Amino acid sequence: MADNPVRRGWLGHLTRRSVLAGAGATAAFPAAAATSAVAASPAPGQNTARASGTTHRVTMYAEAMPGGLIGYGLAPGEATIPGPLLDIVEGDTLEITLVNTTDQRLSIHPHGVDYDVFSDGSAFNASYNLPGETRTYVWRTRERTTAGGRAWLPGSAGYWHYHDHAYGDHGTQGLQKGLYGGLIVRRKGDLLPDKTFVVVFNDMTINNKMAPETPMFDAVLGERVEWLAIGHGSMEHTFHVHAHRWADNRTGYLDGPNDPTPAVDNKDLNPGSSFGFQVIAGEGVGPGAWMYHCHVQFHSDGGMSGVFLVRNEDGSIPDHAQEAIDRYHAGHGGGHGGHAG
Amino acid sequence: MADNPVRRGWLGHLTRRSVLAGAGATAAFPAAAATSAVAASPAPGQNTARASGTTHRVTMYAEAMPGGLIGYGLAPGEATIPGPLLDIVEGDTLEITLVNTTDQRLSIHPHGVDYDVFSDGSAFNASYNLPGETRTYVWRTRERTTAGGRAWLPGSAGYWHYHDHAYGDHGTQGLQKGLYGGLIVRRKGDLLPDKTFVVVFNDMTINNKMAPETPMFDAVLGERVEWLAIGHGSMEHTFHVHAHRWADNRTGYLDGPNDPTPAVDNKDLNPGSSFGFQVIAGEGVGPGAWMYHCHVQFHSDGGMSGVFLVRNEDGSIPDHAQEAIDRYHAGHGGGHGGHAG
Amino acid sequence: MADNPVRRGWLGHLTRRSVLAGAGATAAFPAAAATSAVAASPAPGQNTARASGTTHRVTMYAEAMPGGLIGYGLAPGEATIPGPLLDIVEGDTLEITLVNTTDQRLSIHPHGVDYDVFSDGSAFNASYNLPGETRTYVWRTRERTTAGGRAWLPGSAGYWHYHDHAYGDHGTQGLQKGLYGGLIVRRKGDLLPDKTFVVVFNDMTINNKMAPETPMFDAVLGERVEWLAIGHGSMEHTFHVHAHRWADNRTGYLDGPNDPTPAVDNKDLNPGSSFGFQVIAGEGVGPGAWMYHCHVQFHSDGGMSGVFLVRNEDGSIPDHAQEAIDRYHAGHGGGHGGHAG
Repeated sequence: MADNPVRRGWLGHLTRRSVLAGAGATAAFPAAAATSAVAASPAPGQNTARASGTTHRVTMYAEAMPGGLIGYGLAPGEATIPGPLLDIVEGDTLEITLVNTTDQRLSIHPHGVDYDVFSDGSAFNASYNLPGETRTYVWRTRERTTAGGRAWLPGSAGYWHYHDHAYGDHGTQGLQKGLYGGLIVRRKGDLLPDKTFVVVFNDMTINNKMAPETPMFDAVLGERVEWLAIGHGSMEHTFHVHAHRWADNRTGYLDGPNDPTPAVDNKDLNPGSSFGFQVIAGEGVGPGAWMYHCHVQFHSDGGMSGVFLVRNEDGSIPDHAQEAIDRYHAGHGGGHGGHAG
Repeated sequence: MADNPVRRGWLGHLTRRSVLAGAGATAAFPAAAATSAVAASPAPGQNTARASGTTHRVTMYAEAMPGGLIGYGLAPGEATIPGPLLDIVEGDTLEITLVNTTDQRLSIHPHGVDYDVFSDGSAFNASYNLPGETRTYVWRTRERTTAGGRAWLPGSAGYWHYHDHAYGDHGTQGLQKGLYGGLIVRRKGDLLPDKTFVVVFNDMTINNKMAPETPMFDAVLGERVEWLAIGHGSMEHTFHVHAHRWADNRTGYLDGPNDPTPAVDNKDLNPGSSFGFQVIAGEGVGPGAWMYHCHVQFHSDGGMSGVFLVRNEDGSIPDHAQEAIDRYHAGHGGGHGGHAG
Repeated sequence: MADNPVRRGWLGHLTRRSVLAGAGATAAFPAAAATSAVAASPAPGQNTARASGTTHRVTMYAEAMPGGLIGYGLAPGEATIPGPLLDIVEGDTLEITLVNTTDQRLSIHPHGVDYDVFSDGSAFNASYNLPGETRTYVWRTRERTTAGGRAWLPGSAGYWHYHDHAYGDHGTQGLQKGLYGGLIVRRKGDLLPDKTFVVVFNDMTINNKMAPETPMFDAVLGERVEWLAIGHGSMEHTFHVHAHRWADNRTGYLDGPNDPTPAVDNKDLNPGSSFGFQVIAGEGVGPGAWMYHCHVQFHSDGGMSGVFLVRNEDGSIPDHAQEAIDRYHAGHGGGHGGHAG
């Protein structure tokens, strides 16, 4: 991987993963410098996505992980669940060279972007890696274009994801084992976040973990925090974050003061779907440990919950937050804070 | 409660509940006089929500009800399922003093509004009432604000809800027993309804009832009727009303003639989610008894259906509507009207 | 039916069903001539829906089909599952004369349009056909209208559907047996498609079929292809098409370059819900055999998948597409392409 200088540059999260956060917590800044935390009252000069039409060449390794899991990683021995967050801008191309280090057929299949049948990633199109095989998949993106009159064809921008589509008889088992990850395609001018959290509701797990092993997402008061939520498996879920809400659209922001989009803080997250949004950590509610969880009661009881830690502005952890985290760990295995107190 | 003059003033539904309607049928007019029924062709002078930045101090009582249920009420002995509809305007604050008259830990946790960790209502944050304890929870709201460029952070306006988050080991049992209610935050200028119906799909029940005990919602032809739909429990649902449709956005109205929002008459209503909308009762379809029900067939068969009665303009009940209601009662326990005819 | 000259005129799909496509594949052009395939860069002169306030009188026959199924058809012996696609423009009226050729009570109930209680189609309103009975149901439509200020009441335009609401004790069994179909109400000025596909996720089936018997939808590169997706039964589903995405709104197109609607390629499709959209077949991805399937893994494994064939511009089938189709047929009964390769 050392021969690919692009990789560590545009996937900045590799070196900037916060200490507390799990594999899903990343901060990726494509084609832009990191933003400063001007979140609560953002200035006109804040950082936004810039289009450059770059072709990103990435090598990914599918490999076995402890506990019967399989993950994608950017280098041998670096597989994570979810896999690396891929973060690009409309107009970019991704050339994914996938190395299959396992003894099973598998692939990588994206949502939201353009690919021909040879990069479909499905067994149906014979688009996969045999055991030990290396194969390149090409994903293209584009901007929205007019379709005549008021109608515009949407571009590729969105909070998407990728996953295996060939492992096992039905292409299902790869998902169960952890072969999935986040894919963000930004529109030129979109606000860039300070950090991005990837949350995958996969059957009764979050990122293939259950409480209290689910990711703790870590931010500082006022940071612009981005969430990418992805659904997998065979169960219905709803994603809820305490004390934060967002507009239920492409970005999580209203597009002007009269945008009729509803605000939500709880949203369906079913298999194959994904959405994303940005919030200002702790805005109007202050620092603290906030729960995020599936709101299907049986699921949250069963361990589909985690912690969104919003630190004080100076980076310290409020006493009440530390106490809540301690309570959470003491109380599990069980529901979200249920046995606590 | 007699020492709290605000309560009966702004929660006007207490004295104006229609005779036929169940606990969920209310008419609440915050910071505004009641509207006249100008619905079918509303005039410029129709009533709209006015912002005043009021702090509403409300005392709520959590108490046991017959049949093992528990509800919230505005005075001892007045608990209902769902609990009182809380109806405010962006900029308002709610200070809820919750009196726990039960022998179990419980709390009140809102969606959509701002609260600090001490008002979170979760066991995780040790924010609850012990048995017999009284505790005050503070919920703040605010208007949308610019985030720079075209991006605006959404305000608190929305069709939200509140519920217990601390009863039992996992904070789940309170929901099952009936500890939930509706919360509406209006934006200044929003059209005010003539009446509001609160419908909670909670596992296999509607407002913890099954047909034919589910609420009958009662309106007069041309009234501006508001629905607040809330999902709870562990099952997936879809909410359907016959002969009425709405825009799938914040208000149920299109925001101008070219708003691309789809119209719907059937919408997912899953645990922790909520939405609301206004329709003109019987518009284009006339008076009658109209079904509302979960469209998951197994659920509607099992009793998740009810009646939306649209009376004649003079308030009388059409013969065909009375016959349908009689048929509905004669035909149950069973599906929605299934055995009838 | 020969006495109803309107029928074959405005339901043009009857004579234009493509050879490969199943019952759900239609091309209907209400109140307009067929469009030419200018799709990839549509010209200002492209065909759009025109309002005419027409009353369409249609006779439908509910009749038994092989395998215990029941369908709607436009003539005796012509029943299909789904039933005929009804495709009108806001302002039109549909007068459906339903002939019940079965020995069971049944009806027809629409979503999205206006009907009085006598055309409700529910047993609750005694609105059904007894065995052998003929009955006329009237469905009206209208344009959006102002409700004062920025608020507009939505019109009837939408991707809707119709279904039985009276068969059996609970009005559920008719849906299981196939008594459902698509209903499109266009807004004046909407872009007309080259063809329309109707996809109904009904419990574990697609249009009451399982792979490899599910419909193969057939288009030519660059055609403007419309999908109408409908959910029925008692299970949760998500609808996914490979390599094509759409705006999650009324039409599938963004309403201008700054419309904040998200693009999706996977969407919840739950009982009683429906949505539709148009895409340009193969745009940006080329011809090929593309999967559409439920993304709930257990469901796609169980046979909820099918093929969207995008031919070369000259109408020929690419070799790789034929190979994928052959693989699909060889590999089933099983998951979507799972056993292939």
